[in-house]
Amino acid sequence: MSGELDIFRRQGFANPLGLGQAPALVIVDFVLGFTDPAQFGGGNIGLAVARTVPLLAHARRRGWPVAHTRVVYAEDGSDIGMLATKVPSLRSLTEQAPAGQIVPELAPAAGELIIRKRQASAFFGSELAGWLAMRRADTVLVAGCTTSGCVRATVVDACSHNLRTVVVTDCVGDRAIAPHEASLFDMGQKYADLMPAEALLAA
Amino acid sequence: MSGELDIFRRQGFANPLGLGQAPALVIVDFVLGFTDPAQFGGGNIGLAVARTVPLLAHARRRGWPVAHTRVVYAEDGSDIGMLATKVPSLRSLTEQAPAGQIVPELAPAAGELIIRKRQASAFFGSELAGWLAMRRADTVLVAGCTTSGCVRATVVDACSHNLRTVVVTDCVGDRAIAPHEASLFDMGQKYADLMPAEALLAA
Amino acid sequence: MSGELDIFRRQGFANPLGLGQAPALVIVDFVLGFTDPAQFGGGNIGLAVARTVPLLAHARRRGWPVAHTRVVYAEDGSDIGMLATKVPSLRSLTEQAPAGQIVPELAPAAGELIIRKRQASAFFGSELAGWLAMRRADTVLVAGCTTSGCVRATVVDACSHNLRTVVVTDCVGDRAIAPHEASLFDMGQKYADLMPAEALLAA
Amino acid sequence: MSGELDIFRRQGFANPLGLGQAPALVIVDFVLGFTDPAQFGGGNIGLAVARTVPLLAHARRRGWPVAHTRVVYAEDGSDIGMLATKVPSLRSLTEQAPAGQIVPELAPAAGELIIRKRQASAFFGSELAGWLAMRRADTVLVAGCTTSGCVRATVVDACSHNLRTVVVTDCVGDRAIAPHEASLFDMGQKYADLMPAEALLAA
Repeated sequence: MSGELDIFRRQGFANPLGLGQAPALVIVDFVLGFTDPAQFGGGNIGLAVARTVPLLAHARRRGWPVAHTRVVYAEDGSDIGMLATKVPSLRSLTEQAPAGQIVPELAPAAGELIIRKRQASAFFGSELAGWLAMRRADTVLVAGCTTSGCVRATVVDACSHNLRTVVVTDCVGDRAIAPHEASLFDMGQKYADLMPAEALLAA
Repeated sequence: MSGELDIFRRQGFANPLGLGQAPALVIVDFVLGFTDPAQFGGGNIGLAVARTVPLLAHARRRGWPVAHTRVVYAEDGSDIGMLATKVPSLRSLTEQAPAGQIVPELAPAAGELIIRKRQASAFFGSELAGWLAMRRADTVLVAGCTTSGCVRATVVDACSHNLRTVVVTDCVGDRAIAPHEASLFDMGQKYADLMPAEALLAA
Repeated sequence: MSGELDIFRRQGFANPLGLGQAPALVIVDFVLGFTDPAQFGGGNIGLAVARTVPLLAHARRRGWPVAHTRVVYAEDGSDIGMLATKVPSLRSLTEQAPAGQIVPELAPAAGELIIRKRQASAFFGSELAGWLAMRRADTVLVAGCTTSGCVRATVVDACSHNLRTVVVTDCVGDRAIAPHEASLFDMGQKYADLMPAEALLAA
Repeated sequence: MSGELDIFRRQGFANPLGLGQAPALVIVDFVLGFTDPAQFGGGNIGLAVARTVPLLAHARRRGWPVAHTRVVYAEDGSDIGMLATKVPSLRSLTEQAPAGQIVPELAPAAGELIIRKRQASAFFGSELAGWLAMRRADTVLVAGCTTSGCVRATVVDACSHNLRTVVVTDCVGDRAIAPHEASLFDMGQKYADLMPAEALLAA
């Protein structure tokens, strides 16, 4: 996207936000159904899960707040909204459904927040913003899937909440690579810094 | 994106939402600075403005609620947040700045809402959702710019608010075409129906 | 409060909102711990529960959307915020705690929404507004407890979301009568219509 | 309210939140129309304005973030919602209306935020939460009017956003004293610490 890059550079985009004083890690929708290509997975999601394992360990060693999200719909369909009308297969992700469980290698530890959500953004209709405020986090590191879906929606909201936002580039994945790449470009220009996990671990 | 299309189709995306009973038109950031390629404009934004003129006339004839958005920052910098840190040139869009004025061919009429915003989504930190509720709108038609920026952020939030959401494909534009196309694809798969203005005028 | 009433009348308060076309019933925190005077209950809460039984039956007969709320904190304390810092006893209301279960006479039916909340308002950090939008509800009837706490916070937000808001006066209760009366007065002046259940059943 | 006090004490309410590390001052609706008993004023509002003058000076000396709110409706009525339906006289508070201007003794300084709002809470449909996050404020000191109206709605939301919330008891006022007292009681039990200005200035 070199032509695009020129345009955005000329118009003053992509200024670095930098890391703040108090990071938190938000892991979006790394559940079994999103790592299975026969359900909602595929592409580079499996790789992103693997890369998130050491990032999560690092966050825990440092004592950073960690939040995990799952998509969870009620068994009786009482909370179906427009997203699950546009993508009806999401309705299968109920509290007990195997596909809706967080992958075992990233299982939440005691004290970590688990957000059950029905919309793309982890912030929408949830208490994530207040939970981060309670911990005085000023920086949000985002891992998860999919890059062009729930990750991006979460990143846009994190920026709108005036949090320093970092997309951990190799810890986010998508079922298809073109949308993954396009969303990384957009987020890096407008809403967030892009950093690979290694750079974060070294920082 | 035929490979991508196959993946999304197989996984159950892109179900049509359809039009509801009460549409509203939301026109995002069609201001002079975003139609000027020397500022934030370029690409197909000028064309999208031209196509929105008959759509707006149609909405007014039908009596649909119409909301316009502008990006407006305070002269004294008191409301600068992360978005204007990532994209510092946005700070020039103050209440009186010529670049921040809505294009004359789409000038708001009395009774239409004007939202002054500082974030990407027209819904974030604004009363747009409540304003639509007051009018019992159940469908949001989105025009404006940029497709991969404020339009997309607005569309994701409209879907999250459980409104039937329609991206009017030829009434949205971007400074660069690749991000425009990538965001149309994503929105059509996950959050909204895609319709050209002509189809809406005929509906 | 006749002196107060004069002041508010003279200044233009307390205009009736009226009922809209599509009511929904929101029942706030009628859980066992709030009906037990040894825990969070007392006052006229028990009476309000009894009066809500025929109101809920009426709502179901009419097919109105019904939402119930519970206060639910995680076992591990991961979601404690300022409210549970101000009122630490609330932390005992976990998913399985007997005190946190909805009273049996108002047990939710299939298809009714159950909101697990950690803040006073049923709207805050929840998807209640979008859930009502999905059902095109334009009027919210509020029952529950406590009148001066979660009921009032919910009513203020319902009004802010531009929903016609009705406090069902004999279906709300508080652990102490003076705060109950004071909040009824305030809500009737500023945010909502006050109606007894009988008037609603007859309407 | 000694009987009430006993009940609340026994049930575990009114734990002190304490001051955090980074306070901000939010001054709610101290505009000319709310200090004029012929419009929306009366009671102890004038006194509260006078007491807020040294508090504001103190906040500025300390470099605390300061936000002011005004109620502002569009001249053409395009943004009237339920609150202005319940209290139609509020619609007179337009951008230029003398009654809608902040009192001269508390005139905002450069760099202070001015929120134009149409709902009771300064947080609802505004960017106040994000503005406080941008400044890393963890404590909100609330002055303004009316105690039982916009102050209380703002305090409930501040608590819900997980900010340490302090009602500055002699810097808040109401058109009638009974609602003022009742709301101070409720807020002190459930959402905020109560402190007179003198205690804050000494802290």
